[in-house]
Formats: sequence, structure tokens, C-alpha cells
Amino acid sequence: MTASLKAIDGSADLPVLMNDLARSARAAARALAVAPTAQKNRALAAMERAIRAGTPAILAANAEDVAEVRSNGATSAFIDRLTLTEARVHAMADGIRVIHDIADPVGAVTESWQRPNGMTIERVRVPLGVVAVIFESRPNVAADAGVLCLKSGNAVILRGGSDSFRSCRAIHECLVQGLREAGLPEAAITLVPTRDRAAVGLLLTGLNGGVDVIVPRGGKSLVARVEAEARVPVFAHLEGVNHTYIDHAAKLDMAKSIVLNAKMRRPGVCGATETLLIDRAVAGTHLKPLVEMLIDAGCEVRGDAAVQQADARVKPATDEDWDTEYEDAIISARVVDGVDDALAHIRDHGSHHTDAIVTEDVAVAAKFLNEVDSAIVLHNASTQFADGGEFGFGAEIGIATGKFHARGPVGAEQLTSFKYRIHGTGQTRP
Amino acid sequence: MTASLKAIDGSADLPVLMNDLARSARAAARALAVAPTAQKNRALAAMERAIRAGTPAILAANAEDVAEVRSNGATSAFIDRLTLTEARVHAMADGIRVIHDIADPVGAVTESWQRPNGMTIERVRVPLGVVAVIFESRPNVAADAGVLCLKSGNAVILRGGSDSFRSCRAIHECLVQGLREAGLPEAAITLVPTRDRAAVGLLLTGLNGGVDVIVPRGGKSLVARVEAEARVPVFAHLEGVNHTYIDHAAKLDMAKSIVLNAKMRRPGVCGATETLLIDRAVAGTHLKPLVEMLIDAGCEVRGDAAVQQADARVKPATDEDWDTEYEDAIISARVVDGVDDALAHIRDHGSHHTDAIVTEDVAVAAKFLNEVDSAIVLHNASTQFADGGEFGFGAEIGIATGKFHARGPVGAEQLTSFKYRIHGTGQTRP
Repeated sequence: MTASLKAIDGSADLPVLMNDLARSARAAARALAVAPTAQKNRALAAMERAIRAGTPAILAANAEDVAEVRSNGATSAFIDRLTLTEARVHAMADGIRVIHDIADPVGAVTESWQRPNGMTIERVRVPLGVVAVIFESRPNVAADAGVLCLKSGNAVILRGGSDSFRSCRAIHECLVQGLREAGLPEAAITLVPTRDRAAVGLLLTGLNGGVDVIVPRGGKSLVARVEAEARVPVFAHLEGVNHTYIDHAAKLDMAKSIVLNAKMRRPGVCGATETLLIDRAVAGTHLKPLVEMLIDAGCEVRGDAAVQQADARVKPATDEDWDTEYEDAIISARVVDGVDDALAHIRDHGSHHTDAIVTEDVAVAAKFLNEVDSAIVLHNASTQFADGGEFGFGAEIGIATGKFHARGPVGAEQLTSFKYRIHGTGQTRP
Repeated sequence: MTASLKAIDGSADLPVLMNDLARSARAAARALAVAPTAQKNRALAAMERAIRAGTPAILAANAEDVAEVRSNGATSAFIDRLTLTEARVHAMADGIRVIHDIADPVGAVTESWQRPNGMTIERVRVPLGVVAVIFESRPNVAADAGVLCLKSGNAVILRGGSDSFRSCRAIHECLVQGLREAGLPEAAITLVPTRDRAAVGLLLTGLNGGVDVIVPRGGKSLVARVEAEARVPVFAHLEGVNHTYIDHAAKLDMAKSIVLNAKMRRPGVCGATETLLIDRAVAGTHLKPLVEMLIDAGCEVRGDAAVQQADARVKPATDEDWDTEYEDAIISARVVDGVDDALAHIRDHGSHHTDAIVTEDVAVAAKFLNEVDSAIVLHNASTQFADGGEFGFGAEIGIATGKFHARGPVGAEQLTSFKYRIHGTGQTRP
């Protein structure tokens, strides 16, 4: 195995290889753009079967990847992200089934109207073209991203972390089998067939127009590199420095259950609340119970002076805390002077991802939802709902924190563009 | 006047000045994002009045600009683009009235649904933020772009060609008067207050996050520079190498009126047809009448061998012709072998702008509209309908030929993004 990997590593002809891949992907994208829904779904069904049938081969390839990183001294968290189990492979197959079942966005007419001269104008969804997905150690992204791009009519070039190369290759073989069975071009889902890290830099150039958009899936350093270097559009998922604001008119019980869920359900997801803001008007009644609840649940609380007074176990927050995505059982907490002060804090420290208010005052809620400039704003609900599945999108390729094209959960629809289709009867412009 | 211009030219502190402008624009954008429709419309009505009342001052400033470029030996076409007349100033005011009257896109709920857990999710239009518009000699763009950005809740930084600086400044003063009368921040519409060309380069850097999107309005070299250098998203309007394909099932009369209009109504607009493709199946009956009609109307025809045989006045087309946007009374023409050959030609030579088919065969029309990868595809209508006004958008800031975010005519709606607004009753994620 090592020998066969070496043969495709560190190739001197990497730019040639990558440009060839992009050209094949472009040709596949043209075919996919006009492929009927039934044909794409046949491929998806075949992929699901191939993944289930290929579970032993996927697990064997994964075991080799895991053995290699273990011998190189990887952390247990890293090994956990890389490791596949039978359950994880089956979850991958289940995910393909979900994508099979969602509506095909391509060809959907989202608006149509008639002009006074009798012409009809339709706005129709079309695929974007060639999507490059750059990810890190989690091999399941190869399946998740591959099938979501396929459903939305896009060709995809997958580039996983070199540590998960064998796992991705085994998964990719199952996806290609599905394409083959449905008569779709194999280049519709391409895995960069080398561990050479220079391939990422080449993808970021856009390969002379061969790549239409780049989706980074990974940690901050990967996303930051992609944003800084990419010469084509990026659907970037920046960090989620998310806030839950407990307003003067918040019910304590609701505040407690929302805050506990928003932070502690899964502290490491991007929709987790990182900062708790409490209106001074209810600090006397709400602050202590909320802080105690969090600490008792195993959460470290880093607070301003007022929050520190509520419980002796609170640690002092530094300036840095307000800008930190902990991705862990840690929360920063501050008392603010009403909704305007909360809005100012979020404007100065938020990351335009997801922010929530807990209040019974509908006017304050409307103000908060209107003025917070984040992809997702919630009233009386947990920030952990920031997820394509929870939105009903079936699946997502990430949460976009920019405002261009996609924003929030990037599902199949967000992976499309549109065109205007006009039907006339000989109209000319006066 | 020259002295006062000099004072703000070539400033050593240009980066400081530009960053200050961007910071003020950002603050204005925050205010605009939550400004009620009525307030924005009050500003627009006041701007219209100010432009009408300020016509003499605008014309006087314009006369100075024109005198300067004339003494520098500008071409008559350049002088024509720069020159304002009373009629052109009134057209500018009329354009502001149109924008006043269109619907406010901000706050519009484009989708809403309820989740099984009772939460409602709304997708709501929000402004993009700060738009930088970089344009060339036509001073009316200052008004057109300024008011369209205002209506869509965005702050705008306008940077016109240095030759039109005095004209733009006079127009800008009227716009600012409107903002002032309505109590909106003056920085909502900012004109870069210097002719220093280095200002463009600074805008293209995005001014440290101060600019969210750049809209170039001008010729190919400007657009190419912006696309190559910009470090923020660009709504680029590339050239319109547009095709009209005359299918085997085209009625000759309809083909003639559409082709004549598509090329000759205004040969210089971006929606003009540049290449005529004729199905070999009807070349015997349709080619000669179409070519004669065009030449008789004053259009130069550059054709392949078959087209040259149709009329002795046809000039031979070179390889370059198929990729050329003439913006003039010139057309290239080719005989193709049916719709597949037409699609291949458009794929190889088109610019993803606007393409039309003339046919009575609905299946062929559907295939053409489905497979041509252009922002606007038309069946039995003139390509010159590629215009925001003709779409019913009221106005546009350009035609986007990319697939990201905006595509086709960029009107008020395309200058917005969206957010997800979620209302719950205490929901937490299982």
C-alpha cells in the first residue's frame, strides 16, 4: 500500500494533473447540469448500496490511516475524528439516503412573471458548476459533500487531509461505482489522487477557471488560509462566536433550559453559545441560577465583575474571552444594560453566525432579530438549531457566515445559481 | 476651481482618508439597514427635487469637465459620454423617481416555514452593507448607483472617472441634500473626494473589511482590472458576446424582426447580438434575406464561407470575430448544423450573458434554454431585452455575468443578502 501511495505523491507534474482533473470535472459538470433527477437519484441509491457493501473495505483502509497517524504520535482527539466505525459508515450511507430523498433544486422555477408586452420571465435554479471541497481529517466529509454536490448538479473535486487519504479513497470508490451504475461521468465526483499538499494551493488558484467555488471544511487555520489565498469565491464558515441574550422580560425557566442546551448539548459545534449576556434589570433574579446551573453541569464560567459576584466558582473574563470560540464546556458571561447594550456587544464581538434572545417582550425580540447582523437570529430557541438538518434542508456542507450568495446552512439550494428563461412570441425592444 | 481640486488631489494621506471614508460608510450602513422605507423614500424624493433644482449648477460643473477633456484632446465619443444636457439631467431625476416607486426589498420575507417542533423560520432580505461603485466617464452613474444602493439599504462609496469629477461632485451634493432632509447619515452616499487614481487601488483592497462588494461600471479594461485585483466580491459585468440562433423551425418574418432589433436597435449596448447562427436546414431560405436586411440597415456582416456566398458584401470572418463584442454595427454570422452545433459554438465562444433562439419547435427551444449557460436565455425575443428596466426591476446597476450571488440584471433585490429569523417558544435541540 505504501508503495502505491508513493507513486502518486510528490509528482513533479502536479499542475498538469490538477488542470486535467479540473477539465474532466468541467465536462462532467456540463453533463450533470442537464442530468434528470431520476438519473442522479439512481446514482445516489447505488452509492448508498456500495457504501454499505463496501463497509469492510472502508474500515480496512481507515485502519491503515489510523495506524499511520498513531505511529506518528497524533492526539486522541485527532485519532477520534479520523476513525471510522461500522456505525459511522452506516451513518454515511443513511446520509446518502437523506440526500436521495430531498427535492432536486435544479430546474426549480423560483419566480415567474409576465411583462406588459406578453413575454414571460422565469427565474430557474441551475447548478454552480465545479465545487472544490477542501477538508481535514474526517473522511465522512468525502461522502457528505460528494453527494450533496451531485444532487445539486455540480461536479465536485474533493481534497481531504492527507492523513485520511486511504479512507477517502475507499469511500470515493463507492461513490464512483454509483456514478457508473447510473451512467453518469465518473469525473462528477473526483478525489485528488495524491497526498501532495501542494494540491491545495493549486485548487485555491481556481485552476484557470476550472473551479467555480471553494468550500473549506475544517478548523480556523484551514478556513483562514483558504480565505486569504483563494482567487475564486469561497463559501467560508468562519467561527461561531454566538450569543444568547437574556432580556429583562425573559422567563427564568425558559432562559435556563435554552442556555443549558445552547452551551452544553454539544459544546464543540459551531452553533454552540459562547457568550451569555444578561440584562441588568433581571441580574438580581436570573444571574445566579443561570451561572450555578452551568457550573453544576460542568461548564466553566468566565465572567465580568457582576457575574463573578454571583458565584465564587466564576473565573474572571479577560478581554480576549469576548472574542473566543471555545468549542468546549466554557462560556463567557456579562451583564449588559438592556437590549441596546447587548446589540453593541454582539456588533463588537460577534462573528455573524448565530445569536439568540430570550424574552417575552415581542417588541424587544423584533428589535434584536432585526438589528443583529448574523446569518441566524433566534427568539426563544437554542442557538444549537444552527444546522441544515434542523432547518429541514436535509443536509448541509457548512454554515456560511459571509453575506454573499450563501448565508447560514449551505444546503442543496445554496449550491445553485439561477438563470432567467424568457419566452416570447417575436417581441422586439422598442 | 482648479486650486480647490488640487488641494484634494495626490494626498499623501490617501490611505488614511480612504479608511476614514469606509468607517463612516460602515456606520451609515448600520443606520440604513434599519431605516424605514418611508424615510428612504423621503430622501429619494428630496434628491429628485434637488437634482431638478440643481440642474444649472450640475451643467456648469459638467461644462468645466468637458472643457478640460476637450483641451486634452479627448475623442468625440468620450466627450459624448461625459457631456450632460438638461434632458440628461432630467432623465437622472426621472430615474430617482422610478427607484422611489419600486418596492423596498429590505425586510421582505421570501420564504417561511414551520418546523415539526413548532419553530417558525423566515428568510428575510437584508442589505449587503457597503457597496463600492467604480465607474468611468458617465456622470449619471453617480445618481443611478447612489439611489439604487440607498433603496436597497446599502451605503455606497462612489468613485467616478477623474475626468467627470466636477460633474459627479455636483450631482453628489444633490444626493447628500436629500439624505440630510430625510435625517439619514450623509456618509450613506460617499463620493471619493479626490481625483487621485490610487484611490481605486485602495478600494479594491476592500479597505480592511470596510467594503463588502465592488461593482465596476465601465469598459473591459476597468472590469478586467477590478476582477484581477479585487480582494472582495465583485459583481462583474463582463462583455456580452451574445448569440441569436435561427433554428430550422424559425419563421423568417420573426427571425428578421428579432435579428434586426437584436443587433441594430442600439448596437453598442451589452445586450446586443454579436453573432448570428443559422441552422443549415434553413440556410437556403433564411440566410440571404437576413444578411441582406442587415447590410441594407447599415450593419457590416462578417461571415463564414456559407454566409459569404449569400451576399457579395459579406466580409470574411476571422477566428477572432467569434469571440468579439463589437459594440458597433458589425455582426459575425455562421451556418451551424442544428441546435447541438449552435450550443457547441455558444459554449466555446459565448460570455454567459444573453443568448436567444428563434424557433417554432418548442422541444428545440426548451433544449436551447436549458443547455445554454447564460444569465439570460430567450425564446422568440430580442437579446436587447437584457436590461433591468425591461425585466421590471425598475433599474439596475449592471448585468452580472458570473454565477455568484447576482446574475443577470443587478437590481435592488440583487443588492441584498438575507438572514434566517427564527421564532420559538423555548425550543431546545434534542
